[in-house]
Amino acid sequence: MKIQIVEVGPRDGLQNEKEMVSTSAKIQLIDKLAAAGLKRVEATSFVNPRWIPQLADAEDVLKGIERQNKVTHSALVPNLRGMERARESGLTEVALFMSASETHNLKNINKSIEDTFPVLRQVAREALALGMRVRGYVSTVFGCPYEGNVPIDNSRRVTNELLEMGVFEVSLGDTIGVATPKQVREVMEKIVKDTTSDRLAGHFHDTRGTGLANVLAALDTGIRTFDSSIGGLGGCPYAPGAAGNISTEDLVYMLNGMEYETGVDLNLLLDAGAFIQQELGRELPSKVLKAHLAAQTASSSHSNQEDGA
Amino acid sequence: MKIQIVEVGPRDGLQNEKEMVSTSAKIQLIDKLAAAGLKRVEATSFVNPRWIPQLADAEDVLKGIERQNKVTHSALVPNLRGMERARESGLTEVALFMSASETHNLKNINKSIEDTFPVLRQVAREALALGMRVRGYVSTVFGCPYEGNVPIDNSRRVTNELLEMGVFEVSLGDTIGVATPKQVREVMEKIVKDTTSDRLAGHFHDTRGTGLANVLAALDTGIRTFDSSIGGLGGCPYAPGAAGNISTEDLVYMLNGMEYETGVDLNLLLDAGAFIQQELGRELPSKVLKAHLAAQTASSSHSNQEDGA
Repeated sequence: MKIQIVEVGPRDGLQNEKEMVSTSAKIQLIDKLAAAGLKRVEATSFVNPRWIPQLADAEDVLKGIERQNKVTHSALVPNLRGMERARESGLTEVALFMSASETHNLKNINKSIEDTFPVLRQVAREALALGMRVRGYVSTVFGCPYEGNVPIDNSRRVTNELLEMGVFEVSLGDTIGVATPKQVREVMEKIVKDTTSDRLAGHFHDTRGTGLANVLAALDTGIRTFDSSIGGLGGCPYAPGAAGNISTEDLVYMLNGMEYETGVDLNLLLDAGAFIQQELGRELPSKVLKAHLAAQTASSSHSNQEDGA
Repeated sequence: MKIQIVEVGPRDGLQNEKEMVSTSAKIQLIDKLAAAGLKRVEATSFVNPRWIPQLADAEDVLKGIERQNKVTHSALVPNLRGMERARESGLTEVALFMSASETHNLKNINKSIEDTFPVLRQVAREALALGMRVRGYVSTVFGCPYEGNVPIDNSRRVTNELLEMGVFEVSLGDTIGVATPKQVREVMEKIVKDTTSDRLAGHFHDTRGTGLANVLAALDTGIRTFDSSIGGLGGCPYAPGAAGNISTEDLVYMLNGMEYETGVDLNLLLDAGAFIQQELGRELPSKVLKAHLAAQTASSSHSNQEDGA
């Protein structure tokens, strides 16, 4: 069975990095991800650079990367101004975003949920008129840092509004990484009923170690598209130091091991992970990357340490 | 539904620590784990101290901890000499161990699988005669660092031999952390058929991030007992730097969130995790512990950093 992986590291991951990453490193990363077999890569964001200086080089990144027919590069677009920049960069896919919880939406977008709809509708209309595909993100589906529990009906409403705007797929986000598999099953089952499972994606953060277990639960509900981040890049802005998105390496390891078809070559993916870890100069959360690099070190030092018991 | 958690941090975790941990710290850790509501704690090992100097203080640890009726403390016992030490320490439960793969058994126990059975049988007989409960561990059930793939029938054979010796429960170990949920389901389903699910436990390492997903898969097969390690203590001796056992904090977070009854108070558990992290002076792998400590830091510094997008 085929699984689509949407690589969000260059955007959702890097936007959380304090130290500026060079445009050249971003370009190399994105090209390595494509080379590993990832067919959908969210490359950058057209949010106002004042808010995310790290991604202010969006145009240059998109100019530098290798455009291939096999790979769809996309970018986050908050409004018509962002949409215009995306068009000028020749993108064929953009992504809209908003939250399922009022307070998070207000803090993040500076608008109420109700006032966000018309803005996004206008952007979607414009993108569709230009022949682009439009993706939608819903944040805080499984919990809000301000409101705590988020009623499923809030997420359903936002999801359905986005679908009506013409987005081809809505990514349901566990923004702060609090979900457990039981909740994932319950939420996904309800939202799937409003549409079809191929129009939904799971976007999990591994802040509490449940990321891949949540993927497993979502698979049970028919979801076949998952967002992940190379190296497990990305943090949780409400808990500095905590882990970010589920790692693409870990996701691919699990899915390939379960005989799902991801189309991704894990070894090439690990090259991409090692590359960006080296660039950032700190150990990234991906466990498969850690195990891979540790095994390399061990074999190169011919360690003969044995198991104690 | 009730889940039993077997805390193996003080043994399986600490035995991998190079720096000596003080006896006093071990005692405090074990008592904190019991205070958090863990009813089964593997406290130490009676393996020859020459092989595991870190646990050479087994007698002193068992003398120092608070013995309560509610909590069963156990220790690893490799042979009659170890059994004698366990008896002198007044333990009511011991654990035997061997591997499902020939090469790992040979490297770890210095005997073939065939030659290990009579030794363990003798220890089991002695322990049962003394009125003790005997647990069994099978290592490398999901993969061997020397042989790679391990046939399920090997694991079944070793498991069944241990059950025939009178062990009340066999813990099936993913020693090197390579399992994926599909494999866990297949292996567990077959082994469960030879006995009953309440006589089996899942012992997963989180070396590749699949630990909690594997727990979820094992739950599907009826397994209700899981081994885990406070803080995610423990390493993989074949890949220094890689992650060890699944973290008790992460496991409890997931299970409590799914409304399973673990009997464990997550806040008290986090105190135990923070304590041993402080003692060891390095960041432990547990993600829930990381998120908890990061949130504490954030709230104490009144950070007002906002989400970028």
